[in-house]
Amino acid sequence: MDRAVAEALDRGDTLASFRERFPIDDAGPIYMDGNSLGRTSYAVRAALDAGVHEWQERMVSGWSDWIELPAQVGDRLGLLIGAGPGQVLVCDSTTINLYKLADAALSARPGRMVIVGDANDFPTDRYVLAGLAAARGCELRLIGSDPITGLDLDELAGAIDEQTALVSLSHVNYRSAARLDLEAVTDLVHRHGALMLWDLSHSAGAVPVALDGAEADLAVGCSYKYLNAGPGAPGYLYVRKALAEDLRQPICGWFGHQDQFEMGPAYQPAVGVGRFLTGSPPILGLLAVSAGVELVLEAGLGNLWAKSQALTVMLADLIEERLAPLGASLASPREPARRGGHVAIAHPQAWSWCSALLERQLVVADFRTPDAIRLGPAALYTRFVDGYDAVERMEAVLTSGLTADPGDRPRVT
Amino acid sequence: MDRAVAEALDRGDTLASFRERFPIDDAGPIYMDGNSLGRTSYAVRAALDAGVHEWQERMVSGWSDWIELPAQVGDRLGLLIGAGPGQVLVCDSTTINLYKLADAALSARPGRMVIVGDANDFPTDRYVLAGLAAARGCELRLIGSDPITGLDLDELAGAIDEQTALVSLSHVNYRSAARLDLEAVTDLVHRHGALMLWDLSHSAGAVPVALDGAEADLAVGCSYKYLNAGPGAPGYLYVRKALAEDLRQPICGWFGHQDQFEMGPAYQPAVGVGRFLTGSPPILGLLAVSAGVELVLEAGLGNLWAKSQALTVMLADLIEERLAPLGASLASPREPARRGGHVAIAHPQAWSWCSALLERQLVVADFRTPDAIRLGPAALYTRFVDGYDAVERMEAVLTSGLTADPGDRPRVT
Repeated sequence: MDRAVAEALDRGDTLASFRERFPIDDAGPIYMDGNSLGRTSYAVRAALDAGVHEWQERMVSGWSDWIELPAQVGDRLGLLIGAGPGQVLVCDSTTINLYKLADAALSARPGRMVIVGDANDFPTDRYVLAGLAAARGCELRLIGSDPITGLDLDELAGAIDEQTALVSLSHVNYRSAARLDLEAVTDLVHRHGALMLWDLSHSAGAVPVALDGAEADLAVGCSYKYLNAGPGAPGYLYVRKALAEDLRQPICGWFGHQDQFEMGPAYQPAVGVGRFLTGSPPILGLLAVSAGVELVLEAGLGNLWAKSQALTVMLADLIEERLAPLGASLASPREPARRGGHVAIAHPQAWSWCSALLERQLVVADFRTPDAIRLGPAALYTRFVDGYDAVERMEAVLTSGLTADPGDRPRVT
Repeated sequence: MDRAVAEALDRGDTLASFRERFPIDDAGPIYMDGNSLGRTSYAVRAALDAGVHEWQERMVSGWSDWIELPAQVGDRLGLLIGAGPGQVLVCDSTTINLYKLADAALSARPGRMVIVGDANDFPTDRYVLAGLAAARGCELRLIGSDPITGLDLDELAGAIDEQTALVSLSHVNYRSAARLDLEAVTDLVHRHGALMLWDLSHSAGAVPVALDGAEADLAVGCSYKYLNAGPGAPGYLYVRKALAEDLRQPICGWFGHQDQFEMGPAYQPAVGVGRFLTGSPPILGLLAVSAGVELVLEAGLGNLWAKSQALTVMLADLIEERLAPLGASLASPREPARRGGHVAIAHPQAWSWCSALLERQLVVADFRTPDAIRLGPAALYTRFVDGYDAVERMEAVLTSGLTADPGDRPRVT
């Protein structure tokens, strides 16, 4: 494959103009880390400016509108994850939301003492579940999934039984991008009477998700990857409408109260998903999420997903053609039907390789221990030639030789 | 007292020039709600602009510096609450931080089954404690404090015993501004072997706090009041250095891990206060807190506190002179030594009065159920004539007559 193929794909790209919605310096390194931190869009920048201006002008009176933002932005974000209105809130962080929902799920299945998860899931997911399990005297059963192809459904089925209270899994794996069948897994979990909690951090805005369609129970995710809301922007949570009234929120904050400004003696949880709010929501963060979500909605999730698949298929082809002969290998599922929006590349000196690409200002990607580089070509602003050039630059660096991969690596994200 | 007195006080105000650090429209209503939501400063606006620019330029590489912000900004904020370095983190919200610290305190005092709090404390504090008590089968013992003078120390002493695991109180009451003796209370609690958790939301940046000096254990607070970091800006937490290693964080997120990017199988809490981090910190929010804290440090907390006392003493005098004859009364301690940075005014039609002041664009204050208006003249940007004029406008509205106070009040903050 030569560059002309990528150029032709760009000419046929109906989303090409969306790249202009982001301030991008074409002389800079190629950004292939949209799966870690999405780019700044003009829309988000304007939303933050407007938010600061609104704070300045309205001061405390702004709260009469701001107070609705977690649910309002949540409803819009819900369109990206197949969630009807009144089920999604934008609030807190992914970690906090995971904790709240997992704890609520365990309380809703008293007597069941097992949590099932994935040993290769993102660290915060595993740690939060382990912390809850220890606090409650539950067993955390982590399945040792394949680091490339992901969780095996038969193995999962073997781990779930009538003792299982909760199964918590990432829809798309943070490292390999292996993607689970959300509907089939949810159905399996429900057959055993357990609750299912999905982490959609690597899904929302990249791949289609149908929470309501799968009758999913609970979900969480972040807004700073494919939703481009900025570093540490708020997370979100989903609670199926029929389930909300049965759930008890562990962190009983005043924003989750049925009548917040009554300030009465007893905590009365709000009707519905609103009970999962806690403290004062971060208004500038919410406005950034709102603008980020609207841009994705404008592009259309179906269009983005189609382009994402074409991008990652091209990357997989190029990795095999150019990088495999140099000792690298695709560390993601080959078929887009089993994959999310990024691809991973394994190499024994992955850390030195990734560092050299960054130091020489060629490609921004990220290293994931012990031996992988992730390429996340966000469809909203990444061209096919970007993918092509990135692999070519990676090939050149590998050919020129790498320094030894230090055992004690500096702290990087 | 006539307006010339206030004008003279303004002429002698060494902090007068700090008002110019805030974009203020003198034709607008008088803002007396800095104790609820602080004003936008030019410094915070610039910090947010710079943060967005840094995100745009550095993208994911920015994390190599951003990752230090919770502790760095925490150390600077620590200067305002008498906390030496390595004990304060800016992260999550006040509600979340209160939950984390209260839960950790209960785990650190196994076998002790009583939490002591204040029945007139801010709702989220009471609700979080009640939620934790219910989840753990503890008793929450709320002391019925006086709504104006606040908690009686003898009454508090009577409520604490060898069964008490945790005492959690606000240093300055959200409604009356009644201020507790932080050192005496902490000492009392320690004499019974319990842990003390302070909510400093209405203290930080307004009144002096000496956490280390009082050998306080734990504290939380918010940054959107006297620190002017914006609506829903991040909260903070303090854990005494000698205590941190003994505490278990209930929400085991990856940012609290000892070696975050090792992404290993087991959660190992970070050494020191760092274990109380959870998920990705909100970078723009942190930059706003940083700028807000620096402005307060520049003005000097001693200067601010001196001016704040002069402002609230003047307000208390004016309330007695002008508003008491019309049926209003001071609902805060009279002496500054027993008070924080705001004053409350009780009136049977407080809600209608407060609404009329806002609707007619005269004074922005806030109503607190059932019968109080709070005036929070933040010393950083409030003139003595602002305080004088605010009371004069309040007098005029009260004299002109109010509509009946509706039983079912609209939802306002």
